[in-house]
Amino acid sequence: MMEGVTSASTDETTPAKRRGRRPAGQDTRSALIEAAQVVFGESGYEGATVRAIAGRAGVDAAMVNHWFGGKDGLFAQAVLEVPFDPLELVDTLLDGPAEELGARIIRTFLTTWDHAGSDIFTALVRSVAGHQQVAAAMRNFFISQFFAKLVEQVSADRMELRATLCASQLIGMGMIRYVAQFEPLASTEIETMVAAVGPNLQRYLTGEL
Amino acid sequence: MMEGVTSASTDETTPAKRRGRRPAGQDTRSALIEAAQVVFGESGYEGATVRAIAGRAGVDAAMVNHWFGGKDGLFAQAVLEVPFDPLELVDTLLDGPAEELGARIIRTFLTTWDHAGSDIFTALVRSVAGHQQVAAAMRNFFISQFFAKLVEQVSADRMELRATLCASQLIGMGMIRYVAQFEPLASTEIETMVAAVGPNLQRYLTGEL
Repeated sequence: MMEGVTSASTDETTPAKRRGRRPAGQDTRSALIEAAQVVFGESGYEGATVRAIAGRAGVDAAMVNHWFGGKDGLFAQAVLEVPFDPLELVDTLLDGPAEELGARIIRTFLTTWDHAGSDIFTALVRSVAGHQQVAAAMRNFFISQFFAKLVEQVSADRMELRATLCASQLIGMGMIRYVAQFEPLASTEIETMVAAVGPNLQRYLTGEL
Repeated sequence: MMEGVTSASTDETTPAKRRGRRPAGQDTRSALIEAAQVVFGESGYEGATVRAIAGRAGVDAAMVNHWFGGKDGLFAQAVLEVPFDPLELVDTLLDGPAEELGARIIRTFLTTWDHAGSDIFTALVRSVAGHQQVAAAMRNFFISQFFAKLVEQVSADRMELRATLCASQLIGMGMIRYVAQFEPLASTEIETMVAAVGPNLQRYLTGEL
């Protein structure tokens, strides 16, 4: 089983495959989400294994890497209900001028979370603030699988610092808009926010630090 | 008693007095902190009154406004253990060139919270994420009594949006450095952070949004 995960992982990290559209198989993805909710619920984050989740879903363990990039991504989507797939989103966001990437990220972040609702964002923050293991899992999910992949396409230096600086601005905007709900930021229109915050995010992505 | 609060409040909001050094009286301040911890613990945020806290401390209720700017400020310092006095800090931060205010804020934020420790910041985030009343109290404390007072000295327009944008960057930086502890930002040296984040905060303070 672990051999299967390893070889699938090697296969999946080929850039050409990672950047392309996923093959069909939403049934497999849904089965893994359902199984993960049960297994993480029973065993906790540490105790749950990719093998046990895949076994319960009746699919090969390699499918966890394929659909979620690993255990952390599956946890984020099944348990924390993060309302986007970072692996897909990276491709969408990189489709456009590099100098407008900051604006596209802000627009997508606010559109996604305004729609998902403040409760899910607040629950996510509570989980990260309450559990060191969850915080570590989210580092892998949000930094390694999302921001780092964006930054490496547009930046020439200090990529890890840039990735965490971007994360700081987005999580802070989410804290003010969805968790603390401080006005006027909590109800400022998305395009006004894009104009206000986009250039700051762009500086973290491509500016001189 | 309420009359005392009102007249003291009028007196205290005179800019010349507010900007100056506080008169001696640390005993009164300490007595109010101790009394607040008991009363907030017994009655919760809503149930606790300024009158009850001052009564327990054996001082005039006007002293709550004088030392903490009101119930929210007393709650922040006595219960949430916020490690600075925003009314004092505004004066300190405004002492210097307006175009370097962003850098001074970042430097002071990181120096203060690096010293206070990540546990207090994490507990603060948990309180805000877990209680709507605490979030509302913190809006008054951090936005009205801190960021708004800085912004009004250096900005010409959209002051409330600027104040909440500044808050978003600082709380996000705190989330990444102290709560989630994502590297490299979690251990980046303070002056490197000042160079990286200072200009972004400065744009929120005085730039075109």
